Amino acid sequence: MKDGLLTRADCAHAIAGHAYASPADTLRALAQRSAGADRDLYGVGETLNAFERKIAKLFGKEAAVFMPSGTMAQQIALRIVADRTGRRAFAAHATSHVVIHEQAGYARLHDLAFVPAGTPVALISLADIRAVAEPVATLLLELPQRELGGELSTWDELVAIAGEARGRGWHLHLDGARVWECAPYYGKTYAEIAALFDTVYVSFYKGIGAISGAMLIGSQAFIDEAKVWQRRHGGNLYSLFPYVFSAEQSFDERIGRMADYWQAAQRVAKAFAPYPDVTLRPSPPVTNMFHAFLRGSAQTYLERAQRIAAEREIWTINKLAPTPTPGVFTWEISCGDATVALNDAQLAAALDGLFTPVG
Amino acid sequence: MKDGLLTRADCAHAIAGHAYASPADTLRALAQRSAGADRDLYGVGETLNAFERKIAKLFGKEAAVFMPSGTMAQQIALRIVADRTGRRAFAAHATSHVVIHEQAGYARLHDLAFVPAGTPVALISLADIRAVAEPVATLLLELPQRELGGELSTWDELVAIAGEARGRGWHLHLDGARVWECAPYYGKTYAEIAALFDTVYVSFYKGIGAISGAMLIGSQAFIDEAKVWQRRHGGNLYSLFPYVFSAEQSFDERIGRMADYWQAAQRVAKAFAPYPDVTLRPSPPVTNMFHAFLRGSAQTYLERAQRIAAEREIWTINKLAPTPTPGVFTWEISCGDATVALNDAQLAAALDGLFTPVG
Repeated sequence: MKDGLLTRADCAHAIAGHAYASPADTLRALAQRSAGADRDLYGVGETLNAFERKIAKLFGKEAAVFMPSGTMAQQIALRIVADRTGRRAFAAHATSHVVIHEQAGYARLHDLAFVPAGTPVALISLADIRAVAEPVATLLLELPQRELGGELSTWDELVAIAGEARGRGWHLHLDGARVWECAPYYGKTYAEIAALFDTVYVSFYKGIGAISGAMLIGSQAFIDEAKVWQRRHGGNLYSLFPYVFSAEQSFDERIGRMADYWQAAQRVAKAFAPYPDVTLRPSPPVTNMFHAFLRGSAQTYLERAQRIAAEREIWTINKLAPTPTPGVFTWEISCGDATVALNDAQLAAALDGLFTPVG
Repeated sequence: MKDGLLTRADCAHAIAGHAYASPADTLRALAQRSAGADRDLYGVGETLNAFERKIAKLFGKEAAVFMPSGTMAQQIALRIVADRTGRRAFAAHATSHVVIHEQAGYARLHDLAFVPAGTPVALISLADIRAVAEPVATLLLELPQRELGGELSTWDELVAIAGEARGRGWHLHLDGARVWECAPYYGKTYAEIAALFDTVYVSFYKGIGAISGAMLIGSQAFIDEAKVWQRRHGGNLYSLFPYVFSAEQSFDERIGRMADYWQAAQRVAKAFAPYPDVTLRPSPPVTNMFHAFLRGSAQTYLERAQRIAAEREIWTINKLAPTPTPGVFTWEISCGDATVALNDAQLAAALDGLFTPVG
């Protein structure tokens, strides 16, 4: 309960995400599984550095560095390329995390300029890239595109975009906050996906489910330089071990389940079909996530969600975001272990409870 | 053992620091003591925010914000004042952490200029402040001055310096990485010390002994603005709870022991007296720390330290840093729980082992 409302912690079941654990339980589990693991000191430690090498290898790159956040990792990647090329501009989707969630750190800390590619409401296309009229240092692509419900370009389009960018001499950076989740759809290895890019950022607390943490992956020289910028950002911590252990353990636990999460998303998406007040994007889902666009009263939906939580211990709507269209709200659903564990009867009951007026 | 050498982890006793705990044991203890504590989300959480309010109150300021590192906290403080005043320069001691340990982040991220006050080998005096010929935005003072063995100005000199800086319209920022440790010498409360300053940075992993973490403390408006910069730096993490719980628990455990640590430092310093090859700075210590300047061969000292570790399980020299003077090295000793627990016979045996040639 928080402010008189039930929360995720009060529900044994959930339509999205992984199993809930309290912070104390999370720490206890970490302690149990990390006997013998060593403490890192300012970025140096056997456990930490072995994990970095493992992830770099998975992506077919020379090196990786663990950072507290993706905000730090991506700004640093953009800065390094800008300084190397003498070009301050980077191109990205208008809904990129760098652009909408980081208080313009790219501009205020790094004197970089953002060039939008395409429009905010569709994926970046090859035509959009060709329409970028100015030289940029980097093209940042996000796979999948989170603010578009996790949409993905086709593999052929992606290859064509990468080829066009390379042809113009641009650095290609992958915002891979959710890249783990797109490999099943593409049917490609992480190394095959990363081969289209010079540098990759990955996150460990979304699909992987760790406490926090990210990595920047690229050539040895790039990562060596990134570590200098990490120090400047204040991200070269005295000790990162709680995040490192959590990331490593969660990675080992969940990296093999990404196809299950995608399948779970498809199952949940299908269960929405009977309800006329809902539209999904994308439909069907191409990763573990999608956005449900709900027509009606946000207040009513949230009250129904509370009732379902109280009566069935199933957590459904965490948050409804307004859209420019009056009376339409988005619910972001990212499927995980909890979704896989939810049976069909529970799923149907939850959606019935959300979308059927109480008689 | 690491690379064939004994380490702190191999010794039951130590001349400096706190008790050694493996990362797994640290996490286990954290888990045990944090039942019921809540998980923070992007800087918001009951446990986190209550701890911030507690520290702000201790320093007599309106607000505080937890950050992953002091590097981040201090650059942010300097940036905010520079933007508010339109002055890019700040004054500080030449050995300030901001200047020597942060890869010039102040310049490369924030376009700030450093103005040295005084000389690298002595504390900043009132005369040094008067000699600063250009207007600066901020005067950053470090209490105690770590690179000078933890020296402290007298209280009267400190008050005079602060008055001079205020008279010139400068913001006063306290680098309080080790401020916990200087209150016993001054005989002042933290609020009395902080009253000389507009903003304060404190660290939780040095004397306090937590895993990592820092706070920036000041007016509500200043801290609100600092949170925007924290987001830009990539320091507004999805979840900080392992650091928060560790900082809070370590603070409660050790904040009342700072006078004991100072007393322990005085006891250790006295035990050095019989050995002509050692000079201490400061002598006597004014906090829990001091620097021992050792004449002779660094290799010989480190070999003797290994022998003491092997024969007596007492950890002594962690690192010897070269000085400009040939044949003179510094050993930084920061006293803590382990020092308090070391008995006089162990202390004498350890120093005898270090400074007496083997017969």
